[in-house]
This record gives sequence, structure tokens and C-alpha cells, in this order.
Amino acid sequence: MAASPLLPKTRAFLWKKDKLLLLDQRLLPHKSVWRTCRTWQEVAGGIHDMVVRGAPAIGCVAAYGAVLAARRKALPKGFDGLLKARPTAVNLRWALERMRKVWEQGGNLEHEAIAIEQEDREANRRMGEYGASLVASGATLMTHCNTGSLATAGLGTAFGVLWMASRQGKLKKVLATETRPYLQGARLTAWELKNEHIPFELITDSMAAHLMKTEKVDAIFVGADRIAANGDTANKIGTYALAVLAAHHQIPFYVVAPMSTVDLYTATGDRIPIEERRIEEVVMMGGRRLAPHGIKARHPAFDVTPAGLITGIVTDRGIARPPYIDSLAFLIKDTRPALTDAAA
Amino acid sequence: MAASPLLPKTRAFLWKKDKLLLLDQRLLPHKSVWRTCRTWQEVAGGIHDMVVRGAPAIGCVAAYGAVLAARRKALPKGFDGLLKARPTAVNLRWALERMRKVWEQGGNLEHEAIAIEQEDREANRRMGEYGASLVASGATLMTHCNTGSLATAGLGTAFGVLWMASRQGKLKKVLATETRPYLQGARLTAWELKNEHIPFELITDSMAAHLMKTEKVDAIFVGADRIAANGDTANKIGTYALAVLAAHHQIPFYVVAPMSTVDLYTATGDRIPIEERRIEEVVMMGGRRLAPHGIKARHPAFDVTPAGLITGIVTDRGIARPPYIDSLAFLIKDTRPALTDAAA
Repeated sequence: MAASPLLPKTRAFLWKKDKLLLLDQRLLPHKSVWRTCRTWQEVAGGIHDMVVRGAPAIGCVAAYGAVLAARRKALPKGFDGLLKARPTAVNLRWALERMRKVWEQGGNLEHEAIAIEQEDREANRRMGEYGASLVASGATLMTHCNTGSLATAGLGTAFGVLWMASRQGKLKKVLATETRPYLQGARLTAWELKNEHIPFELITDSMAAHLMKTEKVDAIFVGADRIAANGDTANKIGTYALAVLAAHHQIPFYVVAPMSTVDLYTATGDRIPIEERRIEEVVMMGGRRLAPHGIKARHPAFDVTPAGLITGIVTDRGIARPPYIDSLAFLIKDTRPALTDAAA
Repeated sequence: MAASPLLPKTRAFLWKKDKLLLLDQRLLPHKSVWRTCRTWQEVAGGIHDMVVRGAPAIGCVAAYGAVLAARRKALPKGFDGLLKARPTAVNLRWALERMRKVWEQGGNLEHEAIAIEQEDREANRRMGEYGASLVASGATLMTHCNTGSLATAGLGTAFGVLWMASRQGKLKKVLATETRPYLQGARLTAWELKNEHIPFELITDSMAAHLMKTEKVDAIFVGADRIAANGDTANKIGTYALAVLAAHHQIPFYVVAPMSTVDLYTATGDRIPIEERRIEEVVMMGGRRLAPHGIKARHPAFDVTPAGLITGIVTDRGIARPPYIDSLAFLIKDTRPALTDAAA
């Protein structure tokens, strides 16, 4: 029998039968403010404005958005509106396609949304266990962005691996990048690591290479927003840099994501749309301007890490190894119970 | 005859016969506030607290600090105090050793400090010309941290190359990293580039790899705080990452620094002390806390780029090429007029 999914201390969203509550992550770690969404437009706005972020969380939240849309007879329009909220994360499309299928068949949308959430929580647990099996005792692990309970329905993707390794007594410490420009690492991951009593040090993105060279970094675990059929992985801007640096320092580099993040319809990474966000998110911080007025800046929110730089992809169905074109296709078709269950 | 050194629009410091004025770079680009130093302690405090920064500027400012110390009969104590203000930049030691020699010989300290400043300005001009000779027409150049008139007595080191390439009509644009945690790129370099009407885009440090992959970046020019005899180069944290990323993308990576930054007494980079600064500079920004209270963070202010990742070192005496152990030693001993003069 499968172990019951572990519940995190933090929740990014809460479904309350007739409304969806979103924890406003833009205000963390200073304030915990819940935003109430009663319409799909409010949900789409929350996704677009990054009240909620993290590919798996966005998928769950969009599913509840579809439930709210159905109650106001706003489907199928609501599907399209929710889909457009953010372009890169494929979980959004995946969740909405599931919801659309149920809607077309006249099924129970609320049940489906709850199932998506519960499956994500269970997937988190499995990824945590698979990923922790890759971690040796006394390990120093590096991570990027936020991939914990604020980014998912459960313990997280890459964060779940850190959590599980910590609970198994194998973790020495985490090096967490602050993740400019949105500071998901400094604001969210640091907050979750602190709440979970996992030892860590916060670093700027620019320090990662120096610490790979001067300290022992045993492995790097990151999340994903979309994984192409060949294993190329879109994730938060800065991930690609870490992968190149990891290869240079011969440090294993793992992507952790549920199978819902794998997009077999996208052949390679260069077909993944990269969201360009407002430059105010780069030149401003907390309402304060960092740079001079009237300048140009860039804000690609994601980058693509080629499969060749990825040591393994930890999914809820097992660990895919190169060549990913084969291993990912195998895992996605494999409907046998996951290995951890089979062994139980 | 040598061309007269070009004067920048911005000055980091101004010597006023009985006092030294420092432009408080911590408040840029929002406010231009000049701090008045009448004692060597005030100068040392200004260096330590990063009112003024940039290896060549620190050297000049420390020389004037020694002048102020002499006027209060506070030498040789003032030499030691100024030397301790920051540990990594070797220009500080170099300038103070020149001042100490003049003091021991009963020479005119003020003349020597003014000579150090004028020589740095002239060195900037030469580096700009040598460096620009490496730039092809229509180039996109990347730079890190601030290396312009706020970091030197003149047009800058790496910034001087960008400036000269721009004036020669060869520059398409600059990609300037914001340079966390102190944001010298966003606050200072962006301000100088804007003032000098040089086209540029500000990026976060984490975007550099993505742009190297997805856009044409022709070369990277950075400054240096200390160059060991073998060419290993200490510079602002994040430089080493850019060098690894440049090598991966086969982009030429140049260090630009006057010969006063070359330290033949330091054999290799692992002998260069790396300053660890207060973590408040990482977890706070402009008085605002970014990360949760009570967490650990790191703040190495510099990193070391191995010589093997450096395509060339542009100095005021010419461009050193690998092996640097030979080329740097040759340039430092070479007392012939610089090539640009010889050709005039």
C-alpha cells in the first residue's frame, strides 16, 4: 500500500468549495496575505501577476479556475483565458486539457480538480524518494528558484528531494540561490527551508560558480516548467547557467518534475516559448528603483537547459536517464505502479 | 606626442588640496552626495564602507589618504590603517608602497598622489585603445560590475574599452550585468552608460548564459582587483561564472586592468585573499529586507578566474596573451614608451 502523501507546512492555495484562496507570494516572507478568487478571471490574474507561481501549482490552480468558470457558465472561454495567463509552464495546459475533457463529457469538474491536486501531492512524495536515493550521506546540495510547497500541491519537486534527504539524515546543507529578478530563492525557498528546519545558506546567483569551485557541492537539483521530448528543459532563468557550471565542475545536475511537466508534443527545447516579462521586475524591487530611469533592460523569465547537460530527470514514475527521448517516452507510457509502491 | 588623457563626465573623487571629496556611490543613481575626508581615517572608512570602490580608484584615494595622514603627523600608522581598509584589491597596496617610498625619502607626497591619479587616467586611455582594437564592427559586448569613471581616475578599465569602441562606431550594444549583491552594474554602470549615450541593456547576472546562447555576444570585458603572476584574476563575484560560461560558448573573455593591478608577488590565484563581507549586503537592499530574518547567507565579494579561461589581459602597456607568467613579466619590465605612443 502506498504511504499517505506528506502534507507540507505551507500551502500555496486552498480550495474552499465556492472560492479559491491564493497565498500572495509577492508579499512573502514579510506578510502572509490570502487573495480570494471567485471567478476564473481572478484566478488567471493571480497566475499572470505571480500571486501564485511554480509550474505544478499553476496547473492545480488553473483547474480550480475552470471549476469557477463552469459555475458561471463561462466555459469554454475560461479555458482559453486561463491558458494564456502564462506561456512557458506546460502543466497549465496539461491541467486545462484534463478539465476540458471532463467538461466535454459532462463529468464532475470539482472532483477532477481535487484529483489533480491530490495526484500532484502524491507525485511530490515519490519524486522526493526517488531523488533522495541519489543523495550520498553528508551532501551539500544546491538549488535554484522555489520548488517547494509554494510551487506545488505538496512537498515540492526539487525541494521535496532536499526535504526527504534532510529527513533521511543525509543532508549537510543546502546552498539556495536568491534567483533574481523575482527573488523566489531569497523570499520563498529561504522561508520554506527555515520553516522546515533544513540547514542552508542563501547565495546570490553570481556566487554559484565560486562555491562550486571552492567548496564541495555534491549535486544540484532544480525544478522544471516544461520538459521537451528530448529532455531539453525550460526552467527559471539562471538554470541553464547552473547546468553549464555544474558540467564544468563535474557536479551531477538533476531536474525534478512530475510527468505532467513532460511535453512529448514539444520535440526540442528551441520550440518552447520563453516568456519575456516586464522590465520593471528587473529595475525595481519592492517599489524601489534600483537602476536609472529610462534605460533598457531584459527580462526573459526562463531559459532552456539542453538535455546533454542534465544528469538525470527525477519524475514521479522514476528517474529518466539519457537518452531522454527513449526514457521519458517509456516512463510516460508506463502505467505499472511506481517502483516505490511495487517494493512495498 | 601622446594624446591628452580623456576626461570622463563623472568623477569618483576630487582632491581639493586640504581635503578629499568622495562621491558616495552607495546612493547612486538616486542621489549625488559628496563626502568630505580631512583625515586618513575618514578615507579608510570611505574605502571600507564602499563610499568609493573599484581597484584603481581605491589606489588613488588611498594615496590622498596618505597625504592627509602626513599633514597630521600620522605616518607611518596611516599607511597600515589604509592598507587594511580592503584586502583583495592590490592597487591599494601598490599605491601605498609608492607613497611610503616617497615619504621615507622626504619627497612631496601630494605630488606623488597627483601623479598616481594622472598616470591612472593615462593608463585608462591606453587600455581603451588597446581593448577597442580587439572589437569588431557591430559588436555586442558584455561586461560585469562597474569599471568606469567611478572605479578609476579616468574613463575606466573595461568600461574604457566599451567607451572607445562606441566612439569608434564599432559598438552595437552592451549587455551589462546588474552585479548582485551590490548592484554596481544596475546602479553605477547603467548610470555611466546612460550618461555617455552608449546603447545598452541591463540584465540580471542569471541571464548572462541564456543571452550568450540565444544572442550573438562577441566578447566579454571585465576589470580586475588583483592579477597573480600566472594570470589568475580576482575580480567581483560573478566574474568566474562569466568566464566559464564564455568558454562554453566560445566567446573571447578579456580582463582589462592597469599594470598596477598585476601582483607578481602573488604566484597564483589561490593565494589571493577573498574578502567576505557582511551578509546584510545580501539579505537587505536599500534598508529593505529581502529574505527571512535569522537565516545564514554568504557574501564572498570576489572570485578568482583561472588564467586558462582568460583570452587576453588588456593592460596599459599592451595586451598580454597566454602564457601570462611570461607575457605579464615582460610587460611589467618593459619600460619603452607604450606602442600607441611609439606609433604616433
